Amino acid sequence: MTDKPICRAEHINHVCIAVKDIDATLTLYETLFGVYSNGIEEIEDQGVRAALVRIGGSQLEFIQPIDETGGVARFIESRGETVHHICFEVDDLQAKLNVLDAQGIRLIDKEPRKGLSGMIGFIHPSSTGGVLYELVDRGTAQR
Amino acid sequence: MTDKPICRAEHINHVCIAVKDIDATLTLYETLFGVYSNGIEEIEDQGVRAALVRIGGSQLEFIQPIDETGGVARFIESRGETVHHICFEVDDLQAKLNVLDAQGIRLIDKEPRKGLSGMIGFIHPSSTGGVLYELVDRGTAQR
Repeated sequence: MTDKPICRAEHINHVCIAVKDIDATLTLYETLFGVYSNGIEEIEDQGVRAALVRIGGSQLEFIQPIDETGGVARFIESRGETVHHICFEVDDLQAKLNVLDAQGIRLIDKEPRKGLSGMIGFIHPSSTGGVLYELVDRGTAQR
Repeated sequence: MTDKPICRAEHINHVCIAVKDIDATLTLYETLFGVYSNGIEEIEDQGVRAALVRIGGSQLEFIQPIDETGGVARFIESRGETVHHICFEVDDLQAKLNVLDAQGIRLIDKEPRKGLSGMIGFIHPSSTGGVLYELVDRGTAQR
């Protein structure tokens, strides 16, 4: 561990909630909290339908599994419809992933890949005390 | 349900994570993500030690149970060290709680009470699709 942070988190880009029915969820949040999505996208490599809704300076993301045997479906089965991950904006994601890896932090992605909110990479929850963190490159971040 | 939202969410004030050891967690987040708390407070009526850390325009909150038989301790036992609730800033919290209640939304608090982040009230997760939401009166919100 070094004196400076390994990976400075600049902002909470979004909090992601896994749900069974994204259309019903968006309607509920619209009625209850007055927040709206710009539309639902299908993210094939994650096997989900996903949408972002802006709330002030941050966002919620909703993901609904398409694939009933995939990770998000298994997550809902074991944990219920609840928070799936938190996403921090960082500068220069590839450099941050390299430093995290060099410091022995367990990564799900060693290289940035395309996500709904920009170029992203996941840190394994075993290295963060239990919470799944996504990092999004600030230069590419959807807001 | 009405045409306008029941309780407009203005901003994500914080995301709260339940932990077993708040001191170790703050050290981990400082080293890993470069985020700092202004100190740990004891909130007696919730039976927790709690701290807020700023990340860009939003915050993380950490809560550690003091009371081993309380709700947060039971939460960690059943769910692990993970996200406990999300807190939205709202205008005029008492009025919002009244409208939510009148619309049949199940509330944990029908009147605002003092929390770490300001005057707060909780919505029961059975009315939000599974996630526990805290509302904080924007005029009183710590940032």
